[in-house]
Amino acid sequence: MTGGAGCIGSDLAEVLLSRGDRVRVIDNLSSGKVEHIEALLPNPNFRFIEADLLHREQWDDALDGVDMVYHLAANPDVKFTLGDATDKDLQQNLIVTYNLLESAREHGIRRFAFASTSAIYGISPVQPIPENVSPRPISLYGATKLGCEAMISAFSQLFGMQCWVLRFANIVGPKVRKRGRTVISDFLHNLAANPGRLQILGNGHQAKSYLLSNECVEAILYVVEHAHDPFNVFNLGGDDSLSVRRIADIVIGAMGLEDVELAFTGGEGGWPGDVPRFTLDVAAINALGWRARHTSEEAVTTAVHQTMHAAGISRAGELPACRQ
Amino acid sequence: MTGGAGCIGSDLAEVLLSRGDRVRVIDNLSSGKVEHIEALLPNPNFRFIEADLLHREQWDDALDGVDMVYHLAANPDVKFTLGDATDKDLQQNLIVTYNLLESAREHGIRRFAFASTSAIYGISPVQPIPENVSPRPISLYGATKLGCEAMISAFSQLFGMQCWVLRFANIVGPKVRKRGRTVISDFLHNLAANPGRLQILGNGHQAKSYLLSNECVEAILYVVEHAHDPFNVFNLGGDDSLSVRRIADIVIGAMGLEDVELAFTGGEGGWPGDVPRFTLDVAAINALGWRARHTSEEAVTTAVHQTMHAAGISRAGELPACRQ
Repeated sequence: MTGGAGCIGSDLAEVLLSRGDRVRVIDNLSSGKVEHIEALLPNPNFRFIEADLLHREQWDDALDGVDMVYHLAANPDVKFTLGDATDKDLQQNLIVTYNLLESAREHGIRRFAFASTSAIYGISPVQPIPENVSPRPISLYGATKLGCEAMISAFSQLFGMQCWVLRFANIVGPKVRKRGRTVISDFLHNLAANPGRLQILGNGHQAKSYLLSNECVEAILYVVEHAHDPFNVFNLGGDDSLSVRRIADIVIGAMGLEDVELAFTGGEGGWPGDVPRFTLDVAAINALGWRARHTSEEAVTTAVHQTMHAAGISRAGELPACRQ
Repeated sequence: MTGGAGCIGSDLAEVLLSRGDRVRVIDNLSSGKVEHIEALLPNPNFRFIEADLLHREQWDDALDGVDMVYHLAANPDVKFTLGDATDKDLQQNLIVTYNLLESAREHGIRRFAFASTSAIYGISPVQPIPENVSPRPISLYGATKLGCEAMISAFSQLFGMQCWVLRFANIVGPKVRKRGRTVISDFLHNLAANPGRLQILGNGHQAKSYLLSNECVEAILYVVEHAHDPFNVFNLGGDDSLSVRRIADIVIGAMGLEDVELAFTGGEGGWPGDVPRFTLDVAAINALGWRARHTSEEAVTTAVHQTMHAAGISRAGELPACRQ
């Protein structure tokens, strides 16, 4: 598994180990954290390889004897800010995915699951978005993830790999993430630092689909077990969406704050390449037999409370030990 | 323009010059040929830069003062043979396209046209294939071209570039191409060498859409002039298809041969990643006001005769000077 020290990857590793699988995690810890996998390290069925997927010589041996790859590593900075390097997603998503596909091919690995994203769709005229619309990504993150999907499709066909492409909704969960990475961690960090005022990127009407990390892991495993085509593509989320403005209210309420001034930066999207509003059509995964148990609002509310607990943020309290 | 010493690129350069444009061609001559642009070299409005698009320092200056990029360079080996390097398309299509987009962005170039391919669609359940189906490429060539499209879409949105993505049918024309690159050049070369027997990859039932190179150039310019969205995607071809078996008959007839034994290698596709049968839905480009003047059969017949003439192949004759 790649990206196994990340929020979703470490949860997935834990579930795989609990069912008796042997798990090797490759992670460069650029955004993953050792603390996410600390509890797994003593397990004899678990092995952690700290390596950069751009440099195949650092990790190629780790694929010896592996029968399935879960590829979750990616550039986690979905946001693009003007002035940023424009090749980060090319490197961290496309080239890394090619390296991994090629190594998997050479190792004779026949099963490959990939964490893709609803960001591949861009601003779809069809809402909710089914898997078979023509994607038109508007971010470098979404564009390169679509490029990865395309390469996986070709590898699947050319080399007989069975592949699963999972297009994630926004995944939320208890693990604390860096400021600027998710709306929840942003709001919590920023309100802990300044409880009187909250800056909201965009006009607050952005509305997206949210899914809890543990449900995401469950869905990944469900799809891999139940979808039997050579190449399988599934949206992975619930069937609703939740506005950024409402998330601000949830976070403010959870922290027990009052009279918080909301400062909107304005505009449809929160940042260049942001898809302001979408809901996913999840009929395919539902028909396969899996359904999200929480609405987007329930998922975000749960994640806010979990994150506050994990980060040691109390109601109306300070953030004592923000783990960056 | 990139790939301007290629078959289509050199035709496009000629038309642009004839209407008074200044044209700079970047080509590494890996498949393009100086002879294709020899006639253009004395034109003061023409400049040729022999450079490798993977190495930006070799050509970056050539984008100074340019107001539009036509990006036609690509790995021309659509065919993939088991044992080939799997990263050629990644390098020559994806990384090259990123390099060019990034240079164009830094040079403030606001218009970008891209030669994409019907190979992005893979084996589409919808026939004829409209632009808005969900693509599922089965070749590395198609996969990386789709990845390029996705990056162009993101650059268009993020940096305000107006872009045209043109998904070409199979383009045929008079310029002699290397053996193994096109079905016409293959058949002509092979029959010139052995007039008694012709090997046909696959079962011969493969049927694709063909368009003459000069009509392709005309269509590119028409779409760029008439499609005004920030991001424009068009299939570029006619609305029919032609079987490989029928092409063999056309070539054999044109060469005046008789009693040629046809040896089929068998299988649905001609090579790994080949899309055996497709027709393009060209309603969008027709609605814009452009329509192919020749059917696929007429296009191939014309190209066969043009190629025989250019290569010096006479009826029932030998290939005296096959220019590789």
